[in-house]
Amino acid sequence: MARYDRAITVFSPDGHLFQVEYALEAVRKGNAAVGVRGTDTIVLGVEKKSTAKLQDSRMVKKIVSLDNHIALACAGLKADARVLINRARIECQSHRLTVEDPVTVEYITRYIAGLQQKYTQSGGVRPFGLSTLIVGFDPYSGVPSLYQTDPSGTFSAWKANATGRNSNSVREFLEKNYKETSGQETVKLAIRALLEVVESGGKNIEIAVMTKEHGLRQLEEAEIDGIVAEIEADKAAAEAAKKAPPKET
Amino acid sequence: MARYDRAITVFSPDGHLFQVEYALEAVRKGNAAVGVRGTDTIVLGVEKKSTAKLQDSRMVKKIVSLDNHIALACAGLKADARVLINRARIECQSHRLTVEDPVTVEYITRYIAGLQQKYTQSGGVRPFGLSTLIVGFDPYSGVPSLYQTDPSGTFSAWKANATGRNSNSVREFLEKNYKETSGQETVKLAIRALLEVVESGGKNIEIAVMTKEHGLRQLEEAEIDGIVAEIEADKAAAEAAKKAPPKET
Amino acid sequence: MARYDRAITVFSPDGHLFQVEYALEAVRKGNAAVGVRGTDTIVLGVEKKSTAKLQDSRMVKKIVSLDNHIALACAGLKADARVLINRARIECQSHRLTVEDPVTVEYITRYIAGLQQKYTQSGGVRPFGLSTLIVGFDPYSGVPSLYQTDPSGTFSAWKANATGRNSNSVREFLEKNYKETSGQETVKLAIRALLEVVESGGKNIEIAVMTKEHGLRQLEEAEIDGIVAEIEADKAAAEAAKKAPPKET
Amino acid sequence: MARYDRAITVFSPDGHLFQVEYALEAVRKGNAAVGVRGTDTIVLGVEKKSTAKLQDSRMVKKIVSLDNHIALACAGLKADARVLINRARIECQSHRLTVEDPVTVEYITRYIAGLQQKYTQSGGVRPFGLSTLIVGFDPYSGVPSLYQTDPSGTFSAWKANATGRNSNSVREFLEKNYKETSGQETVKLAIRALLEVVESGGKNIEIAVMTKEHGLRQLEEAEIDGIVAEIEADKAAAEAAKKAPPKET
Amino acid sequence: MARYDRAITVFSPDGHLFQVEYALEAVRKGNAAVGVRGTDTIVLGVEKKSTAKLQDSRMVKKIVSLDNHIALACAGLKADARVLINRARIECQSHRLTVEDPVTVEYITRYIAGLQQKYTQSGGVRPFGLSTLIVGFDPYSGVPSLYQTDPSGTFSAWKANATGRNSNSVREFLEKNYKETSGQETVKLAIRALLEVVESGGKNIEIAVMTKEHGLRQLEEAEIDGIVAEIEADKAAAEAAKKAPPKET
Amino acid sequence: MARYDRAITVFSPDGHLFQVEYALEAVRKGNAAVGVRGTDTIVLGVEKKSTAKLQDSRMVKKIVSLDNHIALACAGLKADARVLINRARIECQSHRLTVEDPVTVEYITRYIAGLQQKYTQSGGVRPFGLSTLIVGFDPYSGVPSLYQTDPSGTFSAWKANATGRNSNSVREFLEKNYKETSGQETVKLAIRALLEVVESGGKNIEIAVMTKEHGLRQLEEAEIDGIVAEIEADKAAAEAAKKAPPKET
Amino acid sequence: MARYDRAITVFSPDGHLFQVEYALEAVRKGNAAVGVRGTDTIVLGVEKKSTAKLQDSRMVKKIVSLDNHIALACAGLKADARVLINRARIECQSHRLTVEDPVTVEYITRYIAGLQQKYTQSGGVRPFGLSTLIVGFDPYSGVPSLYQTDPSGTFSAWKANATGRNSNSVREFLEKNYKETSGQETVKLAIRALLEVVESGGKNIEIAVMTKEHGLRQLEEAEIDGIVAEIEADKAAAEAAKKAPPKET
Repeated sequence: MARYDRAITVFSPDGHLFQVEYALEAVRKGNAAVGVRGTDTIVLGVEKKSTAKLQDSRMVKKIVSLDNHIALACAGLKADARVLINRARIECQSHRLTVEDPVTVEYITRYIAGLQQKYTQSGGVRPFGLSTLIVGFDPYSGVPSLYQTDPSGTFSAWKANATGRNSNSVREFLEKNYKETSGQETVKLAIRALLEVVESGGKNIEIAVMTKEHGLRQLEEAEIDGIVAEIEADKAAAEAAKKAPPKET
Repeated sequence: MARYDRAITVFSPDGHLFQVEYALEAVRKGNAAVGVRGTDTIVLGVEKKSTAKLQDSRMVKKIVSLDNHIALACAGLKADARVLINRARIECQSHRLTVEDPVTVEYITRYIAGLQQKYTQSGGVRPFGLSTLIVGFDPYSGVPSLYQTDPSGTFSAWKANATGRNSNSVREFLEKNYKETSGQETVKLAIRALLEVVESGGKNIEIAVMTKEHGLRQLEEAEIDGIVAEIEADKAAAEAAKKAPPKET
Repeated sequence: MARYDRAITVFSPDGHLFQVEYALEAVRKGNAAVGVRGTDTIVLGVEKKSTAKLQDSRMVKKIVSLDNHIALACAGLKADARVLINRARIECQSHRLTVEDPVTVEYITRYIAGLQQKYTQSGGVRPFGLSTLIVGFDPYSGVPSLYQTDPSGTFSAWKANATGRNSNSVREFLEKNYKETSGQETVKLAIRALLEVVESGGKNIEIAVMTKEHGLRQLEEAEIDGIVAEIEADKAAAEAAKKAPPKET
Repeated sequence: MARYDRAITVFSPDGHLFQVEYALEAVRKGNAAVGVRGTDTIVLGVEKKSTAKLQDSRMVKKIVSLDNHIALACAGLKADARVLINRARIECQSHRLTVEDPVTVEYITRYIAGLQQKYTQSGGVRPFGLSTLIVGFDPYSGVPSLYQTDPSGTFSAWKANATGRNSNSVREFLEKNYKETSGQETVKLAIRALLEVVESGGKNIEIAVMTKEHGLRQLEEAEIDGIVAEIEADKAAAEAAKKAPPKET
Repeated sequence: MARYDRAITVFSPDGHLFQVEYALEAVRKGNAAVGVRGTDTIVLGVEKKSTAKLQDSRMVKKIVSLDNHIALACAGLKADARVLINRARIECQSHRLTVEDPVTVEYITRYIAGLQQKYTQSGGVRPFGLSTLIVGFDPYSGVPSLYQTDPSGTFSAWKANATGRNSNSVREFLEKNYKETSGQETVKLAIRALLEVVESGGKNIEIAVMTKEHGLRQLEEAEIDGIVAEIEADKAAAEAAKKAPPKET
Repeated sequence: MARYDRAITVFSPDGHLFQVEYALEAVRKGNAAVGVRGTDTIVLGVEKKSTAKLQDSRMVKKIVSLDNHIALACAGLKADARVLINRARIECQSHRLTVEDPVTVEYITRYIAGLQQKYTQSGGVRPFGLSTLIVGFDPYSGVPSLYQTDPSGTFSAWKANATGRNSNSVREFLEKNYKETSGQETVKLAIRALLEVVESGGKNIEIAVMTKEHGLRQLEEAEIDGIVAEIEADKAAAEAAKKAPPKET
Repeated sequence: MARYDRAITVFSPDGHLFQVEYALEAVRKGNAAVGVRGTDTIVLGVEKKSTAKLQDSRMVKKIVSLDNHIALACAGLKADARVLINRARIECQSHRLTVEDPVTVEYITRYIAGLQQKYTQSGGVRPFGLSTLIVGFDPYSGVPSLYQTDPSGTFSAWKANATGRNSNSVREFLEKNYKETSGQETVKLAIRALLEVVESGGKNIEIAVMTKEHGLRQLEEAEIDGIVAEIEADKAAAEAAKKAPPKET
């Protein structure tokens, strides 16, 4: 095992960059995270590790804003996340200062993915053990976007996507159930997706909602609990409906 | 496997640069890409990974322009591609600023290939996992060009060529079917070539057409579908013709 | 064994950073440390190695203040601790000089955790073999905080927490017994927690109490002994009570 | 095989520099190249890889000029060649600017060989996988020269020489048939030498002729074909002559 | 064995820094050294290697002063010691120049231990193979101190302590016999401790005495011999006393 | 074998510097070289590789002058030789410019040997694969000198010496036959020594003669042939004399 | 064996620095060297390798002066010696220039040993393969000194000592026979010591004598031969005396 202590990132004979793939394993071990893009609302949700009883969960939010109109959630090494987040925030501010305009969501996504790529091609460093979901509204057109970046430095745009632990199940759920929604419906979809892989419901998830008007807002636990209850009621109703003879509508 | 994590690029006893060859494997695993040079039109086509259902395919184009008159498609590591593309774009702009003239297609090809070579001879970095197809019209003579570069930093000029997944089959198809064409015929040839290795037709390919007058234009999915339909009709007609007794023309 | 002498910090195939995990082992071998946040009092306690008979225990305190309103205890390599402490103190001073305001507890926690992360991603250095407990009052709101950082550079906020030798047992004790207390009650809880894993009582523990008004105060051995005696008396009483028939209250 | 990824260039126990010898293997795998020095004409010829059918052979010449009076052909890694050629061209120009005189052929040969040597003695780089043939007329005396350099950084002067694939056979041919010639005769000798190892005649070779008056001129394919035809006619005549009873002259 | 030639200092899986532990082995092989703190006198003693007959023992003292009021003895690699001593002396002088005050004993101890720590965390160097005993009087309060530092960069304060060869036996002796003494009694205790592990008595030990008034004074061999004789007389008397029937005092 | 690609120059357990010894092997594989010091003449001779038939032997002399009064011959890697020769020439010129005096032979020998030593003690480079023979007249006293340097950076002064292929045989010959001679006799001795190991006589050797008055002069092939003929005549005469009955003198 | 090519100097598990010990092996393979300190005379003697017959032994003295009043002899790698000697000489001169006083013998010894230590603690270099004997008169007090340094960077002062090949035998001889002598007697003792391990007497030794008045003087071979003869005569006389019946004195 010790030999993995010695490396820089280079190609294997069949064209793989092992360090990047190992970093992806770190992501796969990280908390589940989900992003859903609605017409006027973008929702980010992350699984909270069942925090130790005495942990002050209020403090370390896993969903952070990079600028007024851009937010980020991520899966993987938390300490690495802070490095990327700090540098992205500085870039946002510095862009405002030099260009006198806020960054676009794509711009900052490229910036973050570019940093991640750099750590896969230079010697003496390891890749970031981190996938990110970046959301925001275009500062000019107001169009909502959701991007994903991964340790290789690749990024892609999505209507809805997941990363981290069990992201495949969450993504499958989203593929089956995604409809372009707005407002509270978008929030509900994101929470339903997370509940696919997070047990014990609302207590273990963190949800933040971004709208063009109000920027990023972290939901209170009570709000989440409310929606979770709603979801369960819907489900129960649906199942009851299934068992019951088909109604005429 | 771990040992591939440790290297710089040097010669093997029989004169090979393994890191460069491994990088070529990464290219061979990448999406298929094709370029066809017509008299007044140059066409670039790339296979789109059957994107996840929710991916926002509109966003990340695999065919990008470097300057008004030059475009690039590539196969291999997407994150590496962005690094090369950014540096090439900056070189194009900086050339305009310092020399007050746009770059020629050959100039920017040499620049990109030169960057690729550099990463095969210095310690502490790995080669780019990337082959590129570069097309454009000479800003002075208006002559169309199509170049290919690979991870070793070699480049070559072509009438038509392919790279990435199954590039051999595509190239063979092109060799059998290439005629110097113009306009829509050139587009059709490029699409036919891609369809040799891409299944489920127009949905999974991205096509961009460059003309001297209008620069680079990405085809809409509908346009591609139209041409694909045309191609299939042609094929059906041809096969029918084969089975039918020879007509007099 | 010799092979562990040769490394930089990179990913293993299953996404681990071994050097970070090995550094955590160094922490687990370090002295037990505990932090308890009360409403007006924050208490840090550490196990003192049963110092050699002739050691001048007066001298090297394991609980140090970083600024008037912030203190730190840690578990792991003492020499590494000094490096982090020095840099944190300089940051506190330099922040006062440049921003003309004291740092917040979160700010300096981020700073320390950031240093720790940096040593996990660059070549040519090893991670810090150190977990820290950072406590303090917000210089503006006066709100008390307790943070923990670890060799990976992760940090988290707590009501009460432990690190170092047997930290799991201490944490379990805290989870069972933590109530938000104030003043002397908070001190007592911290000492009781430490006594779970430290034998021979007050002699082998070091306790420091921070209040908004008086900053950090190291308890005298006599004071600690007094509280330990009190705790034992409480315990004896409780056990007696258990054996005795239930009293009416 | 992986172990060749890790090296710098040092001595083996029997005094070999393996990296240099491996680089020579890369040269031996490269295209054949030949140089012939006549009294008023110097000819460089290289084998063209049987280019893919669609390759634009017009573009990438393997024989390039470094300055008005100096040209270079090479065998080995094409991408490495470009690096050496660029640096040599810059040196030629910079010499004209600073010394206000063109470089001599020996000067630029020393410069190129010096670069090649440097890459065999410093850590962190690999040798150039390249042998070069450098020709030119002395800018003062008008004397023609032909030099060869190899990956070790050694150079030597020749009347005629070959490098690359099968260079031994070509050299043997030259040794048997070299006479100091001029004009078209020199061109013919170079082509005959190449035809020893290149099949399918004129199509696969590239010839450039340098004269003091006109500098470097690339022969057209038609011209080459003409000479190849002539050569074959000569050969047929010679063989006929052999079979026929000796004529009196 | 050769593999120990290749390392930097990193963690082993169970949280050890092997290079630091190996450096401690070098200390354990070094000469025994002892320090005893009295009320008005601090004594440092070191074992002198039974020097070769012709060695000029007068020259290389193992107990050196860093400043008027601070002295140092050490065990381990002599050549490493000189590096630390030089840097400490320069720091003492430079402190006087910039702060216009002498350093405190703790300050210079931190400085030395800090240097030692640095060499355990950076690549490309090895730890110092050295433990030090640092003694001195506080330049303001006149309080005597005795510190020990080790290769890890840890330091601690002591009433009396030993390092180097057989330091455990010496320390045990000190623990049994230490009383806070002054003047000649302190010297005697230090010598008695050393004699526990040094054979052939006074000839093989070097003793230096520091007082607030006179700074550091190296004892002459004759003086040491005198005290050794006294000690032996005491011992003989004590043993005689043991055998003899208890006297009334 | 591959493992020799990875090294820097360090000691083996029995005190050897392998890289230096391997470099000596490269010297032993190099051309034979000989130097003979006469009273008014110093002669350097080297074996010419039986050059390929078409090589332009006129060009690359193996005996070169460093300054008017100093010359150098060497055995080993030719490309390394050029590096040392260039640096030595620059030192000669720069010495003239700064000190306004030519270098002495010993000075430049020390300079060259110093460079060679440096490459045996620093990481990231390999030793020079080169032994040199340096000759010259002292610019002040006019005394002739002959020095030898080797890859370790050692140098020594000689009346006559050899290096390169079969240098032991040549040296033995010289030891048997050396007498302090002058003028043509010195030249003859050097050639006789070389002929011990070089076959096919004068064609394969290069001779240069240095005198105080005329500096370095390369002998023409014809001159060498003349002397070789003389030598053979002498030998024949001597052998005839041996067989013939002893003459009275 | 190849693995010794790859190292930097670090600790082995039992606290050894192998590279330093291997360097000592290089010293043990070097020429024997001896130093003897008299009251008004200090003598350095070294074994001369039975030089090749044609070597110009006059030239490379193994005993060199560093300044008017300081000289050095050494055993080990000659090329390494020159590096140390040059740097020491420059330090001597630079000390005179900046401090306007000559260095003391101890100062320059510390300087040389310090350089040697440095090469045992930094990466990328190997230790010096060299032990030195440094002698001189104090420029103020006129006191004679003899120091030894070794590859670890340790130094020590001696009345008489030896290093290099068979230094143990020479040292034993010195221990048996050393008396503090002066003038010619000191010279004789040094030569006798060397003759213990050097065969064929005066021819193979080099002797230099330093006095306060005349600085360093190399003895002529004739002088040495004279003393050797004297020594042998003494010995013969002594042995005769032994065999003969005891005389009355």
